[in-house]
Amino acid sequence: MLGWDQQVMMPPKGNEARGRAMAELQVLSSDIMQDPELLEATAAAQSEAERLEDWQKANLREMVRDIKTANAVNKELVEAIAIATNECQHAWRTMRPDNNWQDFEPLLSKVLDLTKEKAQALNAALKEEKGFENDYDALLDLFDPGMRMSRLEPVFSELKRELPGILDQVTEKQQAEPAPVQPTESIAKEKQIALARSLMDILGFDFDRGRLDQTAHPFTVSVADDSRIASRYNESNALGGIMAIIHETGHSRYETGLRKAWRYKPVGRSMGMGVHESQSLFCEMQLGRSKAFINAIAPIVKEHPGEDPAFDAENMHRFFTHVSPGLVRVSVDEVTYPLHVILRYEIERDLILGKAHVKDIPERWDTSMKDYLGLDTTGNFTDGPMQDVHWATGLIGYFPSYTLGAMNAAQLYHAIVQEIPDAQELVEKLEFSPIFDWLSRNIWQNGRFYDYDQLMVEATGETLRSGYFLDHIRMRYL
Amino acid sequence: MLGWDQQVMMPPKGNEARGRAMAELQVLSSDIMQDPELLEATAAAQSEAERLEDWQKANLREMVRDIKTANAVNKELVEAIAIATNECQHAWRTMRPDNNWQDFEPLLSKVLDLTKEKAQALNAALKEEKGFENDYDALLDLFDPGMRMSRLEPVFSELKRELPGILDQVTEKQQAEPAPVQPTESIAKEKQIALARSLMDILGFDFDRGRLDQTAHPFTVSVADDSRIASRYNESNALGGIMAIIHETGHSRYETGLRKAWRYKPVGRSMGMGVHESQSLFCEMQLGRSKAFINAIAPIVKEHPGEDPAFDAENMHRFFTHVSPGLVRVSVDEVTYPLHVILRYEIERDLILGKAHVKDIPERWDTSMKDYLGLDTTGNFTDGPMQDVHWATGLIGYFPSYTLGAMNAAQLYHAIVQEIPDAQELVEKLEFSPIFDWLSRNIWQNGRFYDYDQLMVEATGETLRSGYFLDHIRMRYL
Repeated sequence: MLGWDQQVMMPPKGNEARGRAMAELQVLSSDIMQDPELLEATAAAQSEAERLEDWQKANLREMVRDIKTANAVNKELVEAIAIATNECQHAWRTMRPDNNWQDFEPLLSKVLDLTKEKAQALNAALKEEKGFENDYDALLDLFDPGMRMSRLEPVFSELKRELPGILDQVTEKQQAEPAPVQPTESIAKEKQIALARSLMDILGFDFDRGRLDQTAHPFTVSVADDSRIASRYNESNALGGIMAIIHETGHSRYETGLRKAWRYKPVGRSMGMGVHESQSLFCEMQLGRSKAFINAIAPIVKEHPGEDPAFDAENMHRFFTHVSPGLVRVSVDEVTYPLHVILRYEIERDLILGKAHVKDIPERWDTSMKDYLGLDTTGNFTDGPMQDVHWATGLIGYFPSYTLGAMNAAQLYHAIVQEIPDAQELVEKLEFSPIFDWLSRNIWQNGRFYDYDQLMVEATGETLRSGYFLDHIRMRYL
Repeated sequence: MLGWDQQVMMPPKGNEARGRAMAELQVLSSDIMQDPELLEATAAAQSEAERLEDWQKANLREMVRDIKTANAVNKELVEAIAIATNECQHAWRTMRPDNNWQDFEPLLSKVLDLTKEKAQALNAALKEEKGFENDYDALLDLFDPGMRMSRLEPVFSELKRELPGILDQVTEKQQAEPAPVQPTESIAKEKQIALARSLMDILGFDFDRGRLDQTAHPFTVSVADDSRIASRYNESNALGGIMAIIHETGHSRYETGLRKAWRYKPVGRSMGMGVHESQSLFCEMQLGRSKAFINAIAPIVKEHPGEDPAFDAENMHRFFTHVSPGLVRVSVDEVTYPLHVILRYEIERDLILGKAHVKDIPERWDTSMKDYLGLDTTGNFTDGPMQDVHWATGLIGYFPSYTLGAMNAAQLYHAIVQEIPDAQELVEKLEFSPIFDWLSRNIWQNGRFYDYDQLMVEATGETLRSGYFLDHIRMRYL
């Protein structure tokens, strides 16, 4: 909540005191997690685990994982990482616009070296318990409990094999069609917010249990029955904000849909980033950008922003499914996006496993951009390897989550259609309850009871496969 | 900040999780303050205090006071008070509108009994250090460090002697004059907020260091360079919100004007409630309701809410200085207000000192209302002894602060006029810098370096006197 406030409400000069307050809370929290009595108590509990119910066993498993993770990395390293990432992130803000890779490289190297140390420490501490096969697994597991490199490689390989060809076909097909029209009318923020609230309402967001505010980069934070979406609005292009709201509403529904009986317990939390992203991308990609959905919301969109022909259903559909491979990850479409992720995954994997170094990043980046997207980024660091803040902040092992989420979402929608054959008609009528009820039963209510693979098996009958995502892409775009 | 959020931002169903989070922080904070090592460390520091600079001595004194206060009351009593006040406050919400004293009385008795225990414990623990003469002193000192019953009695006695007579004269005088006209135009909230922001700006509020939001009951919270005012707006009477904003801006200027070098240190905090209220009442009563100020802001008010004749300077002056003794403390004018406070002070003092019991409150209330204000409240509990939530929440020793603040404010303004003879002309020109600079030097920058009496002596050359307040009232109203 203090983090939400910092981004959404806090006056600029409030940041110094806020930084101190949040650091103090972090220290208190670490002290609690590193109390030696806690480890002893969990060991004692584990020795009597057979007396526990299944959900209690899962809860204990989560506790042990959290406590061991908190104790795996020593205080000196935590502090060194905090200093190095703070410095690197700070430098990034000015060096990225200046295209200054040269001065950025040593700062990022420092972050990388420390993150490698952290990965080694986590691997050593949890290897036995979690079955890590390498240091990169230990980082992946922080963001997606149960996800492993050996599970990622085959699905990413298939995407890498299929997507470049699909991308060529789609761009060729779309070039023969009329291009989407951009809005010409400027739409006041207030009207766009009213529309955003309508869309949230349609998707089941409960305003007694949440808020909508404004910020520079859309995000959602949730604590129990208090879920807050912050989004942005471009007055000269009202279409831009629509999918962001639908996406964030997916995150929010997941958090507020967690099992009440497990609230405040480790087992009751949402899964990692990949599953979280699957819920937002389910709303955005499976529902939101479908023809059925766009047709259904078109009259509502017209009610709010007005009569601009850009808001006709057909144009909105073209706009929201326009594919255009580009240099910048956050601006590309769902067909191009996974290739951006895979490019980053391959680099960060090799960095952690010692098969590449920070100085190799630009060349690796340029080669992959040419191979996967046919784009040249030579010398363009701003929109090349310096475009994301992730690595500078020590977020390594995180990028895969975006594409895991996209694949999960497609697999879940496929499973839903098996059980609810009239799903598309429901979408056309904006009647989402049966669909969200399915997600609630199969994802939300499970919290962290299952690990990644089990969760997908329970929900869809099989572990993660890339085929459903590729089918979805072919169906929508070819 | 979480408390601010709870009142201003939080969606209704967020309260359960928020209550738990705030209780958890409270426990962590108590654990820190009750760590035995802390007491040992301060004792060691005290033994070497002669090596400290003066401000460090004051800082240590504040630490010792805080730690001894936190340790004086045992956990069982703290918990019992939390339960009893929670229950009593909850009951108050429904029993007050129902005029149900009978069922409220036993709940309030429980709170009173526990608060007496707390007062005894505080007195026992801090008597030697602080020179308390009775248990009520121990409560007073929680809200106004250094304030004692023996200091209050003479100033309150003088007010009690003088104000009823003044009140008769003022009401007689005002009855012969034209009554203030109420606004007839409804003014949109957005316009009133724009006016509020203008007034805050005029009074030196820095929006890079704070915010303005909406709430049911105006209040201000501040942390370092982050000061947040929340206020309310009545669309059918735009005059109602003006003085609330000026009042809260006074609180905010004090907090953001504290000495930077002492930030986050006990000596660097603002003084107790009485001094805090003196800064808000200085803005509201000494500046805000003066003819000079109202004349000066009249054109700005007209700019925002519009052309309603209620916003003419002369009418606004009548409106803002209209005296009308009434039953409800929060609705009465500055002449009547101290008598409401004294009535409550006398009752709560006797309750703590064992000279009265909760069952005696209604009779005491009725008698004093008749004596001081000539009003009959017999049988009216809603707008009689049940009108305030303070006692139900265990806030005893707090009411005097309101009138201490009013007296301080008058004494400070008198001292300012000695040093800045053209103060009134500055107000007419809305040039407040010299006046606020004086407050900064004499109040804000001192933090808690001095105790109550010393602070007033340093600022005004003498300890608190009621005469300046009475002069101010006579000058403005007779």
